[in-house]
Amino acid sequence: MALWVRFARDGGEGFGTLEDAAIAVHAGDMLGNAAPTGESLPLADIRLLAPVRPGAFIGLWNNFHEAAAKQGNAIPEGPLYFLKNSRSVIGPGEAIRPPATYAGKVLYEGELGLVIGRQVSNAEEAEAEAAIFGLTCVNDVTALDLLFADASFPQWARAKGCDSFGPIGPAVATGLDWAALRVKVALNGRVRQDYPLSDMILSPARIVALLSREMTLQPGDVIACGTSVGALPMRPGMQVDVTIEGIGTLSNPYAP
Amino acid sequence: MALWVRFARDGGEGFGTLEDAAIAVHAGDMLGNAAPTGESLPLADIRLLAPVRPGAFIGLWNNFHEAAAKQGNAIPEGPLYFLKNSRSVIGPGEAIRPPATYAGKVLYEGELGLVIGRQVSNAEEAEAEAAIFGLTCVNDVTALDLLFADASFPQWARAKGCDSFGPIGPAVATGLDWAALRVKVALNGRVRQDYPLSDMILSPARIVALLSREMTLQPGDVIACGTSVGALPMRPGMQVDVTIEGIGTLSNPYAP
Repeated sequence: MALWVRFARDGGEGFGTLEDAAIAVHAGDMLGNAAPTGESLPLADIRLLAPVRPGAFIGLWNNFHEAAAKQGNAIPEGPLYFLKNSRSVIGPGEAIRPPATYAGKVLYEGELGLVIGRQVSNAEEAEAEAAIFGLTCVNDVTALDLLFADASFPQWARAKGCDSFGPIGPAVATGLDWAALRVKVALNGRVRQDYPLSDMILSPARIVALLSREMTLQPGDVIACGTSVGALPMRPGMQVDVTIEGIGTLSNPYAP
Repeated sequence: MALWVRFARDGGEGFGTLEDAAIAVHAGDMLGNAAPTGESLPLADIRLLAPVRPGAFIGLWNNFHEAAAKQGNAIPEGPLYFLKNSRSVIGPGEAIRPPATYAGKVLYEGELGLVIGRQVSNAEEAEAEAAIFGLTCVNDVTALDLLFADASFPQWARAKGCDSFGPIGPAVATGLDWAALRVKVALNGRVRQDYPLSDMILSPARIVALLSREMTLQPGDVIACGTSVGALPMRPGMQVDVTIEGIGTLSNPYAP
């Protein structure tokens, strides 16, 4: 069990494991062969970055029983997903800023993120499970009024792909049992989402196995497992905290 | 006016400009500061690769008047797009292989591809135009039976994102007037698509300008401008040739 983070300091970047209020700096490849350098950095001296920079950022729709029941959606047989602009990723503390040309509603969606650790293609569930390096928090931000603005074509990539609409972090946790965890989202401290991951329709290993039949996944890819009930619009100036016990709290201000 | 290509030889990779049956090898950055090394390589000694490796691969839907009229679609005000798995890219000659678990129809769609040359964000059309480095051919391959397999969620990312479903090339042409060109697709030599780019609903500069309002584009990104009438399923063993005069012919076998 470890908490992996990436950080910036003095113009440079690094990564390591979180130990209380310090980072044990590592060298090598976070997802492969990482070794401690012996250096310890106080958290006060660094700024946390998004813990990974995914090449592919996949987001699931309709993957929780409670949300499916509430919204009247059928239980899907496989992962129903969109691709999120992988460059929409921002780290802890960075501002979520909708496009200047957009004045509509912007939703938070707190989600579990799977971070892929090794290349995986056409895998069975055991191999898929082993390809998951760890877990992180995702805020799958959505420009709601863009999603169905055109009656003929639902715009998932657009509504969810705006710059800054992909906060992830603060850490990637290894060795956690996802099924025992809850995702909580608080707006200015008031809890608005609080749902158990055990309510997931498709488990992490099943999601990765099914995706990998069609699309090879690579180290650093992030899969957001979908959200459950309680996703709401944010108001300017609000702070959004996505918390998963054992991973930490991903905090971002909403600053249109 | 130049034709930029990437190539493999003896395990290494390089890039340069196409001059008759040889490549003038260049060093530096194809999209930025490239300079000839003086070396000339006969085409017979190399294998062409996809000319760029996009970080973002964007595909438009419903961007030609003739296809919109035929399919009864309204003329869109802005680009209606999906994100194509950027790792679905393959180069000239590489096989299009649907997933082993998929036995349905697979469509070719011949399209103009825009290759972004510089970072562009929130641009007006003149700046957007200048950010387009050049033009290439795209085959926007689609697993048709996946697209609407789930009644509640059209699966654009999935149907168009399978490994090998993104042939691009053979070259990136600079200095071409897109409005004077036609896109032709031949299956085993028989022409099945042949449409003028002047029939585009949103021009390249307008597409890039509108996209850039919401999503920063980066050098190497590819935007497939959508297809017109004549996209059809392929049969095993067929060769698909996408030709745009001035760019060349992108040939790929369909090998399920």
